[in-house]
Amino acid sequence: MRAIYLFGAGDVRVVDAPDPTIEQPTDVVVRVSRACVCGSDLHPYHSRPASEHGSSIGHEFVGVVQEVGAEVRRLRPGDFVIAPFAVSCGRCEFCRAGLQTSCGVGGFWNDARLGTAGGQAEAVRVPLADSTLVTVPELSGDGLRDADEDLLASLLTLTDVYGTGWHAAVRGGVTTGSTVTVIGDGAVGLMAVLSARRLGAERIVLMGRHSARTDLGREFGATDVVAKRGEAGIAAVQDLTDGGSPVVLEAVGHLPAYEQAVGVVRAGGVIAKVGVPQYEQAPVGFGSLFGRNVTLTGGPAPVRAYIEDLLPAVLDGSVRPGRVFDTTVALEDTPKGYAAMDAREALKVMIRP
Amino acid sequence: MRAIYLFGAGDVRVVDAPDPTIEQPTDVVVRVSRACVCGSDLHPYHSRPASEHGSSIGHEFVGVVQEVGAEVRRLRPGDFVIAPFAVSCGRCEFCRAGLQTSCGVGGFWNDARLGTAGGQAEAVRVPLADSTLVTVPELSGDGLRDADEDLLASLLTLTDVYGTGWHAAVRGGVTTGSTVTVIGDGAVGLMAVLSARRLGAERIVLMGRHSARTDLGREFGATDVVAKRGEAGIAAVQDLTDGGSPVVLEAVGHLPAYEQAVGVVRAGGVIAKVGVPQYEQAPVGFGSLFGRNVTLTGGPAPVRAYIEDLLPAVLDGSVRPGRVFDTTVALEDTPKGYAAMDAREALKVMIRP
Repeated sequence: MRAIYLFGAGDVRVVDAPDPTIEQPTDVVVRVSRACVCGSDLHPYHSRPASEHGSSIGHEFVGVVQEVGAEVRRLRPGDFVIAPFAVSCGRCEFCRAGLQTSCGVGGFWNDARLGTAGGQAEAVRVPLADSTLVTVPELSGDGLRDADEDLLASLLTLTDVYGTGWHAAVRGGVTTGSTVTVIGDGAVGLMAVLSARRLGAERIVLMGRHSARTDLGREFGATDVVAKRGEAGIAAVQDLTDGGSPVVLEAVGHLPAYEQAVGVVRAGGVIAKVGVPQYEQAPVGFGSLFGRNVTLTGGPAPVRAYIEDLLPAVLDGSVRPGRVFDTTVALEDTPKGYAAMDAREALKVMIRP
Repeated sequence: MRAIYLFGAGDVRVVDAPDPTIEQPTDVVVRVSRACVCGSDLHPYHSRPASEHGSSIGHEFVGVVQEVGAEVRRLRPGDFVIAPFAVSCGRCEFCRAGLQTSCGVGGFWNDARLGTAGGQAEAVRVPLADSTLVTVPELSGDGLRDADEDLLASLLTLTDVYGTGWHAAVRGGVTTGSTVTVIGDGAVGLMAVLSARRLGAERIVLMGRHSARTDLGREFGATDVVAKRGEAGIAAVQDLTDGGSPVVLEAVGHLPAYEQAVGVVRAGGVIAKVGVPQYEQAPVGFGSLFGRNVTLTGGPAPVRAYIEDLLPAVLDGSVRPGRVFDTTVALEDTPKGYAAMDAREALKVMIRP
């Protein structure tokens, strides 16, 4: 099959890779209908050391079950499935608590321990498939023929970015009437806006500098946009929120975004981080979090825990998170998709294998 | 009057200071019945630069109202009062939300902006007295004559350490059946144990190395004591809690205690910090908090919010937090009290002016 491999910084190629097969009796093989490029894929795209053999990449895909292992009970060939970005057993303490990203048996895509490959490919082997994948009966079997592109795009966001934005809003404690500031106008930031709105937030300040993105953010529910950054951005949010935002959703991952979050949060408030931190140390002491009783929370989103709740409104079209995709490429053109996202010419790139 | 002043590192003296007077119509003057030395007083005791005039110190006291300003409505001379370690207006958004330590009008003792002096003295001027102080009718007027030492000691803990331990347990979300690890066997750590027990925790692991203190911790409700520190301490708690503690209460404030907290917390768990951080930067990234969806919370305890709830069980003797006091000194001997606490010969020192 054809698959996307990263050979080093800036070096994405389409290669011939072995067809995935059933290795464990709990595996299935999924033929990928749509995959995409994540903002977090850009981190290795910027920094991965060059290697002769490269490695597969991608962790967001939806598709059709092609083949099932002997112990698979719930899934059948022809089922349309959504693949969360984490593989999970469904049985352990963490899976039962809805924290599937901490499942000790599962893991991730491109995971050496699990032997998984990436999702930017024509097909993918899925371990622990019964518990990992979520079936969409409406699109299974012949249903897929009638599915429109918008719906597929929205279903694809459930593999990561919508669930990640939702996780931020849930961890931030967003509820009816909340005032929320979202830092970052990438796909996750926009999904955090959408999620905060759906959870009842009344005031949503979106911090971002790309007007095409922040315009979409307004359509998703942002009531205010602050394009300034640093001290000026903090002052603007402080002003809009009369002294600070009780809830801040940080959807970037770089240290300045964290500092921005600390700057705009209200005393007693919450910073929920879902931007994967590109740092280990950050300010938490008297002058940042402690002195004002600010709570810091968040982490890799257990999107598996949210898909079933978020799915109905996606299926009936009342929520259209797939609008974050502004570019679609064929699998063979995926390197161009990386370049477009890296240059911020594309917000989020869908791949059609 | 006589009062305690700090003139530099290790240099505590008893001095003649001006008698406090009513300066604002919302002030009262309190004659101090009992004060005490806080673990956090040891930080300036270790590091304060030498100064010719020194400055007053102390933020924990109970006493009797002596004089009231013209606009004081609720308090009368003769009232026995508990003084929380923060002055608060009782009206602002933060006071109404029970976060009096963020009151923008109030402040602290020894606070230049408020013009307050320290609580280790014969008398103290209390601004915003109606909202700041909590009256104990049972000990007001003639009631004080019959009060025993144990009760006064326990009431004194409500000014800071009991409320601070309680804040940790509340912020940590301790509830019936919780498994909790408390880091630190100082007075606040022991109060965190007591608080966790009263909130229903079933398993309470106390990390501390001083057996006299950890023995008291067991009486307050600790089910296990871990005397080891660092990696060995983390391994011991991981073992006792079968993979990590869902709730960790950090009652020290030095960076190794934070690292201990990160090491023992379970994925998806909470670290509630009330030890005043002696650092600004700490690990929060993928390898510490983020990767496992760990929440970091806590800050200066709004003890004013808790006193009324905690008071009845103290008054009826069913809770005896005053047992953390193992040493009592006269005001004139306060420098010896500091030295004893610094040498860890005393757990917590009460001052009888």
